[in-house]
Amino acid sequence: MESNKMTVPIEISARHIHLTEEDFHQLFGEKAELARLKNLSQPKNFAAKQTVAIKTSAGKFAAVRIVGSFRKYTQIEISKTDAYNLDIDPPVRDSHELEHAGTPGVTVVGPEGKVELEKGVIIPWRHIHMHPSDAAEAGVEDGDLVMVDIDNDPRSVIFENVLIRISPAYRLAMQIDTDEANAAGISGGEVGTLLKQE
Amino acid sequence: MESNKMTVPIEISARHIHLTEEDFHQLFGEKAELARLKNLSQPKNFAAKQTVAIKTSAGKFAAVRIVGSFRKYTQIEISKTDAYNLDIDPPVRDSHELEHAGTPGVTVVGPEGKVELEKGVIIPWRHIHMHPSDAAEAGVEDGDLVMVDIDNDPRSVIFENVLIRISPAYRLAMQIDTDEANAAGISGGEVGTLLKQE
Repeated sequence: MESNKMTVPIEISARHIHLTEEDFHQLFGEKAELARLKNLSQPKNFAAKQTVAIKTSAGKFAAVRIVGSFRKYTQIEISKTDAYNLDIDPPVRDSHELEHAGTPGVTVVGPEGKVELEKGVIIPWRHIHMHPSDAAEAGVEDGDLVMVDIDNDPRSVIFENVLIRISPAYRLAMQIDTDEANAAGISGGEVGTLLKQE
Repeated sequence: MESNKMTVPIEISARHIHLTEEDFHQLFGEKAELARLKNLSQPKNFAAKQTVAIKTSAGKFAAVRIVGSFRKYTQIEISKTDAYNLDIDPPVRDSHELEHAGTPGVTVVGPEGKVELEKGVIIPWRHIHMHPSDAAEAGVEDGDLVMVDIDNDPRSVIFENVLIRISPAYRLAMQIDTDEANAAGISGGEVGTLLKQE
């Protein structure tokens, strides 16, 4: 079927943090402003110039990129490899879910203060952002699960349970984490082929 | 087909090193003996009590496990994540290939000396060790490529190009690295289902 042959650009998400405006000012001071470093593929999303440290009693990452704009809830997205280094066990969860029940926290450290998060750390569920016109072409609906074949010998992989998220604000892109990218032997700029999941 | 439904235990290989007897003594001294910590699934393979450090100008791993017995060539097997940390770019290669042309080296440091390797670092090609009786049951031959489905929602993955290695000395086990395990959300003890690759 034609609908099985859509090609999707793949983007690799390194560990990053989304901040509430309140937490940002706690970390960077009352007068600080979140500064745009570069735009990301999804409209309104940008990598900020600022980074923070995140840490637990077991480990630390010194420079975790802030991804703006501000969110309603502070959320940290890391890989399973990162989770081992921090000795925490975050669930694989849809990054669009704002409810962080059952997720671990970390300490977030900025130049002007710190925030003790009791929850908010997840491993992002691999997903595809789609405009409704892409979704119509692919024959999928919001919340569907599809498979994506990444043809990259010798490390070719078919990822199952790839979550479809549709919005008029979205541009077509699949987002995977660094573990998934390394397992598929890719480093950015590749494409995958969307396959129906029965 | 029945032959498509074989279940294979999955083993996760963390970074490790195989040493020649000569390199071992260079690192640990002339009178040292390689000490068995625990047996691994493949006969004659064991995790040694000893570890070494490996390093480049960019990074270091302080305790890399030696896997014995001694080999004809010193070989280091790491993940792509490890490779980023060391700033080297090893190829994905069959770990049974003893020819290391085109592979990077590292400095190996032991308590009594060091070895400057000019080559020998690889990312192991995911593979399945099989006894000939397993191979007959699965309908595969040495060197074949198969797919393995790891059913582990939400991170289920189908690994393509899984290399079949057959020997009367082998016990049935699939070996993947830590990036592949993390992408599939598994931590050891799981099984995969062997699928024919067309």
